[in-house]
Amino acid sequence: MAGKKWLKLIKSLHQKKYRNEHRLFFVEGKKSIDALLESGWSPTKILSYAGFLHHFDGFPSEEITPRELKAISALKNPNGVLGVFKMPEGPEINELDWILALDDVRDPGNLGTIIRLCDWFGINSLICSTNTVDCYNPKVLQATMGSIARVNIVYDDLPRFLESTSLPVYGAFMDGSNVYRENIPQSGVLVMGNEANGISPEVERSIAKKIAIPQYTNETAESLNVAMATGILLSEIRRKG
Amino acid sequence: MAGKKWLKLIKSLHQKKYRNEHRLFFVEGKKSIDALLESGWSPTKILSYAGFLHHFDGFPSEEITPRELKAISALKNPNGVLGVFKMPEGPEINELDWILALDDVRDPGNLGTIIRLCDWFGINSLICSTNTVDCYNPKVLQATMGSIARVNIVYDDLPRFLESTSLPVYGAFMDGSNVYRENIPQSGVLVMGNEANGISPEVERSIAKKIAIPQYTNETAESLNVAMATGILLSEIRRKG
Repeated sequence: MAGKKWLKLIKSLHQKKYRNEHRLFFVEGKKSIDALLESGWSPTKILSYAGFLHHFDGFPSEEITPRELKAISALKNPNGVLGVFKMPEGPEINELDWILALDDVRDPGNLGTIIRLCDWFGINSLICSTNTVDCYNPKVLQATMGSIARVNIVYDDLPRFLESTSLPVYGAFMDGSNVYRENIPQSGVLVMGNEANGISPEVERSIAKKIAIPQYTNETAESLNVAMATGILLSEIRRKG
Repeated sequence: MAGKKWLKLIKSLHQKKYRNEHRLFFVEGKKSIDALLESGWSPTKILSYAGFLHHFDGFPSEEITPRELKAISALKNPNGVLGVFKMPEGPEINELDWILALDDVRDPGNLGTIIRLCDWFGINSLICSTNTVDCYNPKVLQATMGSIARVNIVYDDLPRFLESTSLPVYGAFMDGSNVYRENIPQSGVLVMGNEANGISPEVERSIAKKIAIPQYTNETAESLNVAMATGILLSEIRRKG
């Protein structure tokens, strides 16, 4: 059975504070762990039921009981295996391609979906404002399906980054100009804002071009969710790029 | 306090069987109810805490206690008001515009998001295969944010509908042709498939053109969620239309 040291450590990793202190995070489920392994990430530890253990031969692993896993899992119904990984060190921002920037995105499911979109559309660099939800939050990781290993994610002072970049800065605004009619350059920064309040005034100052997804025929429709809007805008950027 | 008859009826409306028997459904929260009222729908009954009741003057309403609401609500944290509405009778399919068709979409959140997308992109007609999740399911309604009042939703034998329509039928497939390079006609049917299995063989037979959202640089990315793919494809259709 798993050592108490590991159980205690993993419990602490539910909190951002301890994830940052240890520079460790955990993911759950064979599929998510496999995705990280395929991307060349090495687990610090795999904890798994006996029947799963052989799958992780060659990695540092320990057997865990269903009861122990339930006690440390972030899932209502834990699915048999949990892997602890080191956070990558200093991922690089590639200014030769499009960069996605998030200003205060709070919902873990939205961030997870956005990371998957970056993976799909080949956006390697994701810059998150420091008040954006932590990408190593278990709920975010559950929604990324392993894509997190293929996207460089940096938490930074977003207003400062935008002031210093030489790339053209685009931002999604409800009253922006029709994105379908815009010329889109080969590289740039696309900024998406908070779920309720959109892009903050401080970040807005650095935005050279406000864009929007046009709404059809109905002026009372609910605005698109930030992850959906990100998907549609990245599709436009890749289509034209 | 609310009559027992209503409490019992609303409890039964959690189940599709009783919703169909009574041709009634319920939505929760002031915002969702207001959206239906604004679209001209009339509630059969509003049940609300005393403080909310004045907001629904002129509609048949009754006071409900927090405890009673908790007992009949579909939410973990009920938010003070619940409205019972009649299902619309025989909504019309408009074959002069694009129609969205869903083949066995199972997740309530996905259907709710897709209904919101129809509203945003002005798609008036949504045809759901009979095995698609019920659009009056409380979880779907929670995700539509009232958009359901502005989209005509029909449950039908999808293979039969597709065989009989004179519109060109497009379907989303992982190995379809690049949607960015397709000519898109002024009207047609776009078919989206099940979350795990995609479009069924029976429906596939009626599909004239298979389309896909191209993936960039990374061949191992997780496929896009069906709601996200629907959003991106509807954006393409509206952009070109």
